Amino acid sequence: MIIMKKDATPEQVQHVVDEVAKVGLRTDVSRGAYLTIIGLIGDETKADFTHLAALPGVKEARMIEAPYKLINREYSSAYGETGTRVVKIGDVELGGDEPVFIAGPCAVENHDDLFRIAEKCRAAGAQILRGGVFKPRSSVHSFQGLGSAGTEEAIEALTWLRDAGREFGMPVVTEVRGEAQVDLVSHYVDMIQIGARNMYDQDLLQTAARKKLPVMFKRHFGASIEEFLCFSEYIAAEGNKDIILCERGIVPLGKGKNFTRYMLDLAAVPVIQKETYLPIIVDPSHATGRRDLIRSMSLASIAAGAAGLMIEVHDRPEEARCDAAQMIQPSELKDIIDSARQLRKIAVK
Amino acid sequence: MIIMKKDATPEQVQHVVDEVAKVGLRTDVSRGAYLTIIGLIGDETKADFTHLAALPGVKEARMIEAPYKLINREYSSAYGETGTRVVKIGDVELGGDEPVFIAGPCAVENHDDLFRIAEKCRAAGAQILRGGVFKPRSSVHSFQGLGSAGTEEAIEALTWLRDAGREFGMPVVTEVRGEAQVDLVSHYVDMIQIGARNMYDQDLLQTAARKKLPVMFKRHFGASIEEFLCFSEYIAAEGNKDIILCERGIVPLGKGKNFTRYMLDLAAVPVIQKETYLPIIVDPSHATGRRDLIRSMSLASIAAGAAGLMIEVHDRPEEARCDAAQMIQPSELKDIIDSARQLRKIAVK
Amino acid sequence: MIIMKKDATPEQVQHVVDEVAKVGLRTDVSRGAYLTIIGLIGDETKADFTHLAALPGVKEARMIEAPYKLINREYSSAYGETGTRVVKIGDVELGGDEPVFIAGPCAVENHDDLFRIAEKCRAAGAQILRGGVFKPRSSVHSFQGLGSAGTEEAIEALTWLRDAGREFGMPVVTEVRGEAQVDLVSHYVDMIQIGARNMYDQDLLQTAARKKLPVMFKRHFGASIEEFLCFSEYIAAEGNKDIILCERGIVPLGKGKNFTRYMLDLAAVPVIQKETYLPIIVDPSHATGRRDLIRSMSLASIAAGAAGLMIEVHDRPEEARCDAAQMIQPSELKDIIDSARQLRKIAVK
Amino acid sequence: MIIMKKDATPEQVQHVVDEVAKVGLRTDVSRGAYLTIIGLIGDETKADFTHLAALPGVKEARMIEAPYKLINREYSSAYGETGTRVVKIGDVELGGDEPVFIAGPCAVENHDDLFRIAEKCRAAGAQILRGGVFKPRSSVHSFQGLGSAGTEEAIEALTWLRDAGREFGMPVVTEVRGEAQVDLVSHYVDMIQIGARNMYDQDLLQTAARKKLPVMFKRHFGASIEEFLCFSEYIAAEGNKDIILCERGIVPLGKGKNFTRYMLDLAAVPVIQKETYLPIIVDPSHATGRRDLIRSMSLASIAAGAAGLMIEVHDRPEEARCDAAQMIQPSELKDIIDSARQLRKIAVK
Repeated sequence: MIIMKKDATPEQVQHVVDEVAKVGLRTDVSRGAYLTIIGLIGDETKADFTHLAALPGVKEARMIEAPYKLINREYSSAYGETGTRVVKIGDVELGGDEPVFIAGPCAVENHDDLFRIAEKCRAAGAQILRGGVFKPRSSVHSFQGLGSAGTEEAIEALTWLRDAGREFGMPVVTEVRGEAQVDLVSHYVDMIQIGARNMYDQDLLQTAARKKLPVMFKRHFGASIEEFLCFSEYIAAEGNKDIILCERGIVPLGKGKNFTRYMLDLAAVPVIQKETYLPIIVDPSHATGRRDLIRSMSLASIAAGAAGLMIEVHDRPEEARCDAAQMIQPSELKDIIDSARQLRKIAVK
Repeated sequence: MIIMKKDATPEQVQHVVDEVAKVGLRTDVSRGAYLTIIGLIGDETKADFTHLAALPGVKEARMIEAPYKLINREYSSAYGETGTRVVKIGDVELGGDEPVFIAGPCAVENHDDLFRIAEKCRAAGAQILRGGVFKPRSSVHSFQGLGSAGTEEAIEALTWLRDAGREFGMPVVTEVRGEAQVDLVSHYVDMIQIGARNMYDQDLLQTAARKKLPVMFKRHFGASIEEFLCFSEYIAAEGNKDIILCERGIVPLGKGKNFTRYMLDLAAVPVIQKETYLPIIVDPSHATGRRDLIRSMSLASIAAGAAGLMIEVHDRPEEARCDAAQMIQPSELKDIIDSARQLRKIAVK
Repeated sequence: MIIMKKDATPEQVQHVVDEVAKVGLRTDVSRGAYLTIIGLIGDETKADFTHLAALPGVKEARMIEAPYKLINREYSSAYGETGTRVVKIGDVELGGDEPVFIAGPCAVENHDDLFRIAEKCRAAGAQILRGGVFKPRSSVHSFQGLGSAGTEEAIEALTWLRDAGREFGMPVVTEVRGEAQVDLVSHYVDMIQIGARNMYDQDLLQTAARKKLPVMFKRHFGASIEEFLCFSEYIAAEGNKDIILCERGIVPLGKGKNFTRYMLDLAAVPVIQKETYLPIIVDPSHATGRRDLIRSMSLASIAAGAAGLMIEVHDRPEEARCDAAQMIQPSELKDIIDSARQLRKIAVK
Repeated sequence: MIIMKKDATPEQVQHVVDEVAKVGLRTDVSRGAYLTIIGLIGDETKADFTHLAALPGVKEARMIEAPYKLINREYSSAYGETGTRVVKIGDVELGGDEPVFIAGPCAVENHDDLFRIAEKCRAAGAQILRGGVFKPRSSVHSFQGLGSAGTEEAIEALTWLRDAGREFGMPVVTEVRGEAQVDLVSHYVDMIQIGARNMYDQDLLQTAARKKLPVMFKRHFGASIEEFLCFSEYIAAEGNKDIILCERGIVPLGKGKNFTRYMLDLAAVPVIQKETYLPIIVDPSHATGRRDLIRSMSLASIAAGAAGLMIEVHDRPEEARCDAAQMIQPSELKDIIDSARQLRKIAVK
């Protein structure tokens, strides 16, 4: 990591970049409001930090020990007092003082359901609309989302999602499940979601990152926090730091019943805040798989310091083609959002 | 489970007990403020519920499907509106509207430290005093608590604990690690703690339960929630329902660093509330092992609905002989308790 | 599942396929040496099995309860006495009486190393050559395989691999890490590998399956056996049953050191044999990450009934750019292969 | 660890012990056939190894870095060529060249069943007889073993076990579930078993160790290997090194079905052999919970290097009051033992 002096010139920055290139490393230049920081991509041990520290315009040059370097908390000085990067999705700011709520149905199923649910989510206080078009499913015999039915159906579903967002003033997010979908999806959404199952898919991460849209990146249910952050680094290394991390539960263990689909690891929220400057949100719907646990886990997430929540909502869950058991009513969403906002003021000072 | 009519006579209750005994089952009679309920201990399939339902004074008789029968939520009608049993430890009520805070040092090390810390915990708002005398330790080469140094030392440490509690108006709790300690410990404390490592020790559970003191029972770090509840049943089957369950984290998984000692499973809080009438508290100190995470995990626990918290406190952690890294200052405790009380009002309605 | 009579005509088979299509399901027709079996793809509850059973040429029609239908053991009657499908990779048969050994370096690094190691693996008794061109890596700062350096480098590395295989009479296998690599890789190899990290990547699975080459499919380290088999079904549903399953360890758990990279789940070998007709092999190299455990875990795998092993080999591990700690010498490979062949005769009767 | 010279006198050994005591540490003196080694119990950093190394008769003095010191492989020089301690149970030697087979019913249920099964196990080649008297059970509503029915019943069951062992020439082993049972049990058996659920019960470990009988010590299903070895140290610190470690599976993880009760961690076998001089055996019955997997997992264990197996056997499993699904017939046992003996010769050289 190389921190430039406040008055460093673009030429001095370029000179540092050139010097680093000589030992075969790439660079990542972050121009924050406060500081310009140059990250190194590749094997840092090849760099001569004593030499780099002596270059004109350089304030400080040192190796970052953690395996996630570009997203490391050591960069947080670039992000002002809270040390958290504020990511803009459309005109919604995530990572600041107010928690942000993402809501919508599990899957985009048809125009009318989507618009009706979107309107109700907006009225309940949600700021970003979600809806799955390409659904990752455990069984090839299950509904895979309209996106998998053919290109035309994918375009239709994505158009509904975009239009519902515009109609009700909400930026939209949907998941890409494979590299081949990134290009198409990026024309319709304000944020790209990479799901838990694809966390380790470094080629998809890089392809998505290059679209220069914010990326919501979910932790795999078999991944340690360290692995999660290491893979976030694949997105950052493409020059895209607009990353929103999302905790959504890890695999349960133990003999006998655990009562929830996954196990929500809420300590991940403050831990990740201490390790990186990226904002972290929580998805209580997939973590628990149970409607009757969404409220308590949502409030617990906010109390733990989460920058936002993503919650699945449906006003007629019995008609939904997936995840019916975990979707809550818009009225419950409103209650959760109201309580969460009050709670945040007590929890985060 | 057999629910007696409100006006059932003691003779009618006894008659049911006798009928059940004929098929080789034991009974557990709960006389609540509202109802008398008779639980069956043993293989319920041997009972003829049609016959039992027809006995005089019986309102309802049915099999409980879950493997934990005596602590099952189906009994909650005996506990009024909230359906949660309020457990009295000394004169502190745990399980009601207000959250309860248990605090104190990891281990009782000497008279002065204990009294000084107890006073500060009390001033910070804690209601129950904790302190380990018999410490479960992973290494035989580490400090095992004063209790393991000999009977005299054990008695001295237990006396300090009891006296510190009296001095500052706090009931006290300490852990029993083995059956041989139960008798001694029960003379000095207001509540017996069974630690996570002993959760599966059914003989210790039964021995402790017979002392008719409240039992704080911690989930093993390798146990599913179902197993945890099944073992609670060993305590209840001795006729002791004054059980406080405690979630304290389960073993982490995944390759690479997880940053915390264990993984706190906060969804266990609402799940357990839906499965049993017993109150559940959280121990964020052992779950995380990190002082800087105690506040966020404490507030998250209360937001999830926990009936209380147990937190390790030391004003000079650098002098502590165990768990120095996870003990917080009394001033931090005060801040947590104050925030938690406010938060509870928003979270639990 | 619909089993046709031995003398069923192609017209009768087509008639069944057409009838199934009427309720919106796709079909998968397996023409074994013994029987023709028609699998249904999609929601089987839509099919009227009584009607289908009555069609001309149909011997039996019934629903398969398990979520993996096309690879289900119930089809094993199509595979003769052992009930295991023999998969041909080039001219090597995997799944029969003799265990098959896949060996080679972790990564293809240069022409000379590859050819030298391939020759030694062949001499040691290995039948299939492995070598990574696109390496999945936890850190963007690490060596990603020659394939990630550019198209030219990828082609060069793949050519070396193909040529080394031809030179020493070994079919070759390499991993595809993303959909974009499938087309290129399929021109050079005899079998496509889908790595553990991509197990949940259903789009990659389908893309690879369509190449009609055998697919070696590795279990994710966070996946239950049931999930592993469910995702195998994505490959089978493309009409490609030449699937070789591979157990390679799951994430360790517990506080403290576990001494191996992952935890090898050897019971998965006989369990999978009882659930599906697909052959299963073991990769002890990635499971343990330790050279000194490869022999014992290789022999244990064969004793458990594995149809083969994949082992990383390097004669100068200190020069390797990845996984140096787990690669064994060719001489050790020879010892393992010899012992494994003897052992197989005792273990599998 | 202090290694004495071959010709060191008892006085010199005592002198070292006295010097160590001066800094507040206990010692554990191992007089092997080859060497006398003195282990330190407590915080080794208090010892001055330079000073100790200079005492008369001392060959070498150094700190052992691992947390398990007394059972550390570094002591293996005391155990001859293989470096494994041979433990004698009655007149059976476990830990040597030949694998040892422990077999018998899950529980001792009555005289006739036990004697009949014991005879058949002996005929099949088993050398040690097992049978549970105090059964650890997940449910208080289940059969807890005859031992829990009362003292008289416990004595009767233990007497049957001892007598069946004598009648058919097999030393016997049974489990102690709590401290209160140790004294009684020790009068009837040749080896005390501490079950997985009690692994963390340090008071029970110490109480059992003091009986100076061999202890079979099972790994908890939530424990890392490191924890398992750390707790073994509690037994060794009582001066009892006749410890047989037993791997029996850890808790499964992942969403969906895993098909076995626990997950057998066979890499634990060679790992433990490299970390300690104690012999390690495997219990495939509890690990899998499935009769049809016992053969393959038994052979895999032996191939991995296990010093023996413990297998549950019943000739009328449908009549058994516990674990019916995992007990094999005596004829299957014979086949396993015969194959295992052949296999061992190939696997372990």
